[in-house]
Amino acid sequence: MGIPNESRERLVAAARDLYASQGVGATSPRQVLAASGVGQGSLYHHFPAKHDLALAAISATVADSLAAAAGELRGDRPALDRLRAYLERPRDTTNGCRIGRLTSDQAVMSDAELAAEVGSYFSGLVERLTEVFGEAGLPDGAASDRAYAALAIVQGGYVLSRALADPTAMQRAVRGFVSMLSPALEERQ
Amino acid sequence: MGIPNESRERLVAAARDLYASQGVGATSPRQVLAASGVGQGSLYHHFPAKHDLALAAISATVADSLAAAAGELRGDRPALDRLRAYLERPRDTTNGCRIGRLTSDQAVMSDAELAAEVGSYFSGLVERLTEVFGEAGLPDGAASDRAYAALAIVQGGYVLSRALADPTAMQRAVRGFVSMLSPALEERQ
Repeated sequence: MGIPNESRERLVAAARDLYASQGVGATSPRQVLAASGVGQGSLYHHFPAKHDLALAAISATVADSLAAAAGELRGDRPALDRLRAYLERPRDTTNGCRIGRLTSDQAVMSDAELAAEVGSYFSGLVERLTEVFGEAGLPDGAASDRAYAALAIVQGGYVLSRALADPTAMQRAVRGFVSMLSPALEERQ
Repeated sequence: MGIPNESRERLVAAARDLYASQGVGATSPRQVLAASGVGQGSLYHHFPAKHDLALAAISATVADSLAAAAGELRGDRPALDRLRAYLERPRDTTNGCRIGRLTSDQAVMSDAELAAEVGSYFSGLVERLTEVFGEAGLPDGAASDRAYAALAIVQGGYVLSRALADPTAMQRAVRGFVSMLSPALEERQ
């Protein structure tokens, strides 16, 4: 029973890499098969339809990314330090956000189940960031608005870096936002 | 000479609409032809290659959008009011930013001339926003960082609204950012 599961994992890993570099719509089952090195029978055994493979691959990417963000945002350090660490983490701006880019992928957004996976990533992040802004001293409504703004900075930073072919655009957007965090929080207190 | 120019304008207008709703890569010359209502000869006369039509359509959208933003950001009102007006302007989040979305369109980003058009939109906006943050009292470096952050809020707001299928996500991100503008500026002065 070990080998079929290994095949499944290799297929999902190959799909995740291809989705990250070229998108879901542009990735064919044949490409995933070639990149994974597993047999054709395995692909159709584990994932009878392209949708099934996309769901498994996107769900895995969403789960990993949420777990990584939760790890950065949790801990004993002051809330503002955790927010800074999350925002200032180095990001690969060349390919854009693995999940944010899916919002422009018609193959994803026209499939309700895949679109819901993408949504669950952002609603999970909003929830976690709202908690941390709450811990930083903001009342609920303001903490939620600030959480949306923090997420928008990261997603917009990716868009700007790609548009300007300039990795520093993300860093500048984050720096401009982070520089406002302390004075804005002090005002509240 | 009137009719050929009218055909050209109709072709460009049809291309702009189709690009906005379905992207550049997914739009065929045949679809533009059908939507424009002009004859096939006109298309190939004015735009021998798909690239030529895409360049004309994207350039026109960039010029219009930059002119609209410059209009909002110019004027005698206090700089902070103009920034708020720009950020809080209602935006159609269903289809996303006409220009920001092009950064995920492989047909655009793999064509150096089209990608440069997209870049010129964002560098034009960065320049204008940096001026206005300077008028609001920020030194040059901080004004530039804040300009990148403001643009990222809008572009990221589009991504969040699409991902969450929630038009208010954009409004929340903008509100979270705008609420930080005044205290952060007072800190500087």
